[in-house]
Amino acid sequence: MIKVGIVGGTGYTGVELMRLLARHPGVRMEVITSRSEAGKPVAELFPNLRSIVDLDFTAPALDSYRDCDLVFFATPNTTAMSQAEELLASGIRVIDLAADFRIKHIPTWEHWYGATHACPALVEDAVYGLPELNRAAIRNARLVANPGCYPTAVILALLPLLKNGLIDAKSIIADCKSGASGAGRKASVDTAFCEVTESVRAYAVAGHRHLPEIREVLRTVDADAELVFTPHLMPMLRGIHATVYADASAPGDQVQALYENHYRDEPFVDVMPAGSHPETRSVRGANLCRIAVHYLEAVNKFVVLSVEDNLVKGAAGQAIQNMNLMFGLEETSGLEALGMTP
Amino acid sequence: MIKVGIVGGTGYTGVELMRLLARHPGVRMEVITSRSEAGKPVAELFPNLRSIVDLDFTAPALDSYRDCDLVFFATPNTTAMSQAEELLASGIRVIDLAADFRIKHIPTWEHWYGATHACPALVEDAVYGLPELNRAAIRNARLVANPGCYPTAVILALLPLLKNGLIDAKSIIADCKSGASGAGRKASVDTAFCEVTESVRAYAVAGHRHLPEIREVLRTVDADAELVFTPHLMPMLRGIHATVYADASAPGDQVQALYENHYRDEPFVDVMPAGSHPETRSVRGANLCRIAVHYLEAVNKFVVLSVEDNLVKGAAGQAIQNMNLMFGLEETSGLEALGMTP
Amino acid sequence: MIKVGIVGGTGYTGVELMRLLARHPGVRMEVITSRSEAGKPVAELFPNLRSIVDLDFTAPALDSYRDCDLVFFATPNTTAMSQAEELLASGIRVIDLAADFRIKHIPTWEHWYGATHACPALVEDAVYGLPELNRAAIRNARLVANPGCYPTAVILALLPLLKNGLIDAKSIIADCKSGASGAGRKASVDTAFCEVTESVRAYAVAGHRHLPEIREVLRTVDADAELVFTPHLMPMLRGIHATVYADASAPGDQVQALYENHYRDEPFVDVMPAGSHPETRSVRGANLCRIAVHYLEAVNKFVVLSVEDNLVKGAAGQAIQNMNLMFGLEETSGLEALGMTP
Amino acid sequence: MIKVGIVGGTGYTGVELMRLLARHPGVRMEVITSRSEAGKPVAELFPNLRSIVDLDFTAPALDSYRDCDLVFFATPNTTAMSQAEELLASGIRVIDLAADFRIKHIPTWEHWYGATHACPALVEDAVYGLPELNRAAIRNARLVANPGCYPTAVILALLPLLKNGLIDAKSIIADCKSGASGAGRKASVDTAFCEVTESVRAYAVAGHRHLPEIREVLRTVDADAELVFTPHLMPMLRGIHATVYADASAPGDQVQALYENHYRDEPFVDVMPAGSHPETRSVRGANLCRIAVHYLEAVNKFVVLSVEDNLVKGAAGQAIQNMNLMFGLEETSGLEALGMTP
Repeated sequence: MIKVGIVGGTGYTGVELMRLLARHPGVRMEVITSRSEAGKPVAELFPNLRSIVDLDFTAPALDSYRDCDLVFFATPNTTAMSQAEELLASGIRVIDLAADFRIKHIPTWEHWYGATHACPALVEDAVYGLPELNRAAIRNARLVANPGCYPTAVILALLPLLKNGLIDAKSIIADCKSGASGAGRKASVDTAFCEVTESVRAYAVAGHRHLPEIREVLRTVDADAELVFTPHLMPMLRGIHATVYADASAPGDQVQALYENHYRDEPFVDVMPAGSHPETRSVRGANLCRIAVHYLEAVNKFVVLSVEDNLVKGAAGQAIQNMNLMFGLEETSGLEALGMTP
Repeated sequence: MIKVGIVGGTGYTGVELMRLLARHPGVRMEVITSRSEAGKPVAELFPNLRSIVDLDFTAPALDSYRDCDLVFFATPNTTAMSQAEELLASGIRVIDLAADFRIKHIPTWEHWYGATHACPALVEDAVYGLPELNRAAIRNARLVANPGCYPTAVILALLPLLKNGLIDAKSIIADCKSGASGAGRKASVDTAFCEVTESVRAYAVAGHRHLPEIREVLRTVDADAELVFTPHLMPMLRGIHATVYADASAPGDQVQALYENHYRDEPFVDVMPAGSHPETRSVRGANLCRIAVHYLEAVNKFVVLSVEDNLVKGAAGQAIQNMNLMFGLEETSGLEALGMTP
Repeated sequence: MIKVGIVGGTGYTGVELMRLLARHPGVRMEVITSRSEAGKPVAELFPNLRSIVDLDFTAPALDSYRDCDLVFFATPNTTAMSQAEELLASGIRVIDLAADFRIKHIPTWEHWYGATHACPALVEDAVYGLPELNRAAIRNARLVANPGCYPTAVILALLPLLKNGLIDAKSIIADCKSGASGAGRKASVDTAFCEVTESVRAYAVAGHRHLPEIREVLRTVDADAELVFTPHLMPMLRGIHATVYADASAPGDQVQALYENHYRDEPFVDVMPAGSHPETRSVRGANLCRIAVHYLEAVNKFVVLSVEDNLVKGAAGQAIQNMNLMFGLEETSGLEALGMTP
Repeated sequence: MIKVGIVGGTGYTGVELMRLLARHPGVRMEVITSRSEAGKPVAELFPNLRSIVDLDFTAPALDSYRDCDLVFFATPNTTAMSQAEELLASGIRVIDLAADFRIKHIPTWEHWYGATHACPALVEDAVYGLPELNRAAIRNARLVANPGCYPTAVILALLPLLKNGLIDAKSIIADCKSGASGAGRKASVDTAFCEVTESVRAYAVAGHRHLPEIREVLRTVDADAELVFTPHLMPMLRGIHATVYADASAPGDQVQALYENHYRDEPFVDVMPAGSHPETRSVRGANLCRIAVHYLEAVNKFVVLSVEDNLVKGAAGQAIQNMNLMFGLEETSGLEALGMTP
């Protein structure tokens, strides 16, 4: 039994982690911390966990995690970077679901996150937790930076094209649509039901924090990679749909087979048949990225469609996938649930 | 041209008032106040008003309203009661869209609203602004208490039964369903999109502030009136659906004709044909309460279904209807829009 | 391994059965039939099952089920009654998720379903599959009538009150709210997105097929039971919220303890703390009915709130619970998933 | 008073036309036809029109329109082309809200619509009814082809860039998101609530009928224009959001002023301030296209965001705008309603 702690269990990635871990056969949750809710039963805040998760929130303190093998940070950005070092020093491994360790280039991180990084040395050690790219390194990692929700969908959509040199790496446009849970659980007018439902809007067209993350990862594959990234807010709970465009630099007629081969052995990437249009609901609640690739001969472009549940393959599910790898468990353990349709 | 001011124009009843008043042929908006947004163009907060409403929010001050004939309070409860007196003294008429003047019995009001009433004397003068009940008095009112959204739907559903003595007035159950805009525009986890969508729940089963309001008004018709009132939150923007049950105390076979006659001359109440089930969307954006009455012979009960747009006939539209009556305008002026379906 | 067949796997209860059975450790799906989709891969119709459910739809024929231990009917009403007899004669057990065997009184069934019953003799044998009421009989049943979605929520809400004689059994009002998946998967204007979203309406106020089902079951507990049942359509996918009212005939102050005791050992009924308001989303995807009971002293009435996922505890999940009982499996097997919030 | 007829009044563009025309001061609706609903009161099908629109549906026949000055076709594609000629010959003007007269190049039309065009000669005469492009011609038109919903949003987004030669006309990508009402009112599993809500998907990536329409119109401005057009279905009723990308071929720093100047006198195009992100809800129910233009210097691309209500500026409202122009009425007559937010 792996003993885990969760720092900051009051957000949507926190409750999703708990929902999944509660049924993981190889894990026991030891401690869930929250500064604001300390003393309250977890199941009072999240009635879906009633009678299954019996823990109370406790105030965060290093000592809280002393019995843990692993600590997940489901906190706002800049929390994990100030606590990870001590945990690692105590032999506790760490998965950060926030952005503190995702970007290797510190000045870039500091520019986009508006803060001084508290432990740049650890950033070097951290492994970017996308198993489809870094599986071997994750197995040996002490510290994993769990990828952002948009980056997961966009990078998985592009890897086969980019690794095989089929596109002009400077021509990428990623037009992304996300459900509202991506914005987190918080008191804010902008995320109120009446502000979000029955409407669609783009945001951060001039620049979003996931842009440098995607770019840096893509450049580990092709140093020329550059992209436009436009996130849009959709009136739904869960789901990201990435529509990714790129100019073909080689004939596109074999692209379907290329994708199928590339992801043949991946348990959590599903390449759909040629001509398909994946729906976000087909992966609701599932740890899965579903992809369809189209080649438009008339304009010589590829259009790749990829969908995921932003809280699962885009956050908590991927974190558990990383945990499974780090601790030598079956990679799919605890992640077998199918997408819930309808 | 009637010159009007709006106090507290940053909520959903405020923006709805502005949307409707902007196209009212007999009204000019002079001033919109907001403590928090003073100095900002109204259309920056509410882009739907861009290029039509050119005012900036101004800080509230008595002097702000000196050119107004009428001031609407679209404020939280307990604001109007401390400002109405001065305005009235200056000859400015007042319509309060909040609850400060709705309940005549001061101890009841103070119990439910948890505050000491600042001007009980004015409560006596205030007219409860339900035109279908108090049209004559509204015409002569200086101060109108605009009804609550739930009370409008429930009272209009019951008036014909109660006035004609067809029910046991103690047996009323009002099971009500409301869209989320009834909770107002605010930063709160409870009203976040991800907390409201794809879910239904009751609230305040033990007692809601609209219960004493409904009861007091019903008792002006039948002194024995008593009811259970259960509000539910629906995953939608606009609309209230009241399902009202009462034991029949007289044969129910003429009830359809009774309703049709009772509301024959009302411009904003529509009695549907026998056997109908009104939809909230049929009145979306319209100043209209649509009613269907059913008599269940097997159990000798009436079931009355009534729908309204909580922001229009349940708030801003009814306030304008009251304004039209108070200033001798055509009662329907500015309120001609049809329900928007789909 | 129990080998199961599903008749009519193209609706929402069908796909939900497959989603749950695919991960059930003691079950193998042998055959999924559909007249209209015969020959098509199941996963082509339901991409959420891709790579997990490898079956094709086959045309229904008695022979199709020869290797099955159990057949689920996820068909429209009146299908199971003409096929169950032969299956049972072959030693195959049957769970009907439609209504053919729910009502014992044949003339009542024939009145509400507008058809002549094809095998009244079997109705007598069939067990009404509500484990919380009929667990022992279900264990020995060859034929189970899986309860309707509304009846499950309403009956579970009322059992403790009715069994303990705390209410006037003739005074029951069940005001129910359902998500749109209850209407099934079909081509119809009435269930189109644009007709359902952003609106609420009652339907079948004069009488709905679930009324006689609820009444008959309640009368097995209290012969006087009578009720008003009003279903409403909500703009959401999954979830039923029953708000049940009844006149108290005994003091209500011990009712919380009564409910807690009554359901103490039930794995799939959760009694919330006094004063609670359950949300449908708290049971999304879970085989669970969550209940809160309120006593309103001023009017001497009980108000019971109960929520379920209509496709799980209200259909496919309960069918699997029944299967587990019939075949001596752990009752909770395959049904451990927690509610998905958000 | 202009006397108008509507052919095919049972769809969403039909009911929206009626909703708007019912309050148009210069129009009287004479006849609404429907083959399937002949004899039924219009308000029975669309309760939002109750007590305002008193007409019954009548079976379509040329004679039905003899008193009309103008006939709107709110029919499926290929209906108007077989009836327009006779109407025009009788001196009745025609606005087709379907696609029969939108594309000048007949083989292209026949390819995409899978039919032989019934009156190619009329296509030549027809004016593409985008007032911001063809206002003068519309004033004199007998036959107007009302633009598609997507084309309106995309073309208005691009006109200033294209007319001023600021972009590589071959580099256009239009990633579009539409509410479900764009798919029309019909009995279909694909458009069912449970298939559309809480999900996002692309469709017709390989080619959509609005692609040749957009391309042909853009080529009247720049003969080199070519584009990728990807429509996506959003879980909402109304609204289109176009996100349009193009490579800059000239410096982009003056683009804000360019857009503001270009649309300065347009009553139904609103250019937002630099850096804005328009929301579809800001134009809900309004005849308005709201646009924001962004220049991304790092990649030298323009990103233009444009929103409209697909049933208003994208269909019925634009048709009325065209009618106003054709009959010399004030262009804004009957189209003054503001966007409904929330």
